[in-house]
Amino acid sequence: ALAATIESILRDGPLKGRHVIVTSGPTQEAIDPVRYIANRSSGKQGHAIAAALAALGARVTLVSGPVSQPDPTGVTVRRIESARDMLAAVEAALPADAAIFAAAVADFRPEAAPTQKIKKEPGAPPPEIRLALNPDILATVAQHATKRPRLVVGFAAETEKVVEHATAKRLRKGCDWIVANDVSGDVMGGAENAVHLVTEAGVEDWPRMPKEEVAKRLAVRVAEALG
Amino acid sequence: ALAATIESILRDGPLKGRHVIVTSGPTQEAIDPVRYIANRSSGKQGHAIAAALAALGARVTLVSGPVSQPDPTGVTVRRIESARDMLAAVEAALPADAAIFAAAVADFRPEAAPTQKIKKEPGAPPPEIRLALNPDILATVAQHATKRPRLVVGFAAETEKVVEHATAKRLRKGCDWIVANDVSGDVMGGAENAVHLVTEAGVEDWPRMPKEEVAKRLAVRVAEALG
Repeated sequence: ALAATIESILRDGPLKGRHVIVTSGPTQEAIDPVRYIANRSSGKQGHAIAAALAALGARVTLVSGPVSQPDPTGVTVRRIESARDMLAAVEAALPADAAIFAAAVADFRPEAAPTQKIKKEPGAPPPEIRLALNPDILATVAQHATKRPRLVVGFAAETEKVVEHATAKRLRKGCDWIVANDVSGDVMGGAENAVHLVTEAGVEDWPRMPKEEVAKRLAVRVAEALG
Repeated sequence: ALAATIESILRDGPLKGRHVIVTSGPTQEAIDPVRYIANRSSGKQGHAIAAALAALGARVTLVSGPVSQPDPTGVTVRRIESARDMLAAVEAALPADAAIFAAAVADFRPEAAPTQKIKKEPGAPPPEIRLALNPDILATVAQHATKRPRLVVGFAAETEKVVEHATAKRLRKGCDWIVANDVSGDVMGGAENAVHLVTEAGVEDWPRMPKEEVAKRLAVRVAEALG
């Protein structure tokens, strides 16, 4: 009976029948078989958003980099390592009504990733890592010719001029909203987050709150935006 | 009564009164506040070794990089991020009767780690990461002028010529044993390990077994070596 009640609540959720793609966690870019470049990201915020959207009745595809977070219940999880894998998984999950890009995607990857471990040569200078630009997942989806979701939301992790950078990013990427946060403190891996929601209408400063609360508030706004 | 029995077994363990330092996990080397270079390492093998040594009665200091493994019971844990921090924590823990360096320490770190996030400049080529050589923790302790532990054990993760590289490494570093493993398969993060123990006497090929079994076998050998 309880299960039936829960199912009925979910069936009647405001996001019933909507498909939302969420990305979460870091990406890892291989330098060689044992070394990689990564971004600091626990996946807490992205996973919480996926859970909050599912709780409002959405069908959620969560594309996640390597994290120690458990899979949220009722969510389809696709696990990937690199930014290129993440883009492929997101494109495979389209079409969607909304896409929320909360992952901390590496902007750059090592140009070449040898299949053998790079040896430290005694006496030789350290090797140089040449970087290549990763695909821009947010811009690719926000400017998609045929499958752009109605609502595309990006994240901006900044250490300075947070709102200024986020406002410019929204226009440059062609997305609808940017959730901007200041990561100069202990946000990475922490339980709380203080964000600014940057939309066409302007900037909302949300008070510092648990990441689960940020997620619920954002999910409600997504439901409102999708009508 | 049970607790007293366990305590008495520990008191009478073959490593009673011995101090052993164990390193475990990866190190993370900051590129900027949000990006880092790391090695793939779950910390499973190093943490299991710390637990196995403690079970034989040793006082264990475990110096660990960022891992999702729980702290082993009865072990003093020092958590660090970078190779330089790991060396400082190991040196602070000396003197010791034995030291087992199971961590996957990054050989290199970015030469400079700006306190602001490196911005991706639209249209500009990707930045280059200049690397600097990290301190060699194994060689530093194995060749320590005044505080060299009686038994110094290094690990070698190799993707080719495993035993050949490990044998050369033992001599180059000045340590007593090398535990060598082939990481070209799924050892990283996996539950099992197939290792070779390289000592002055030669090479022992241990069969593939759970990491906990590798740890117990190694702990018994440490107890034998310390007499």
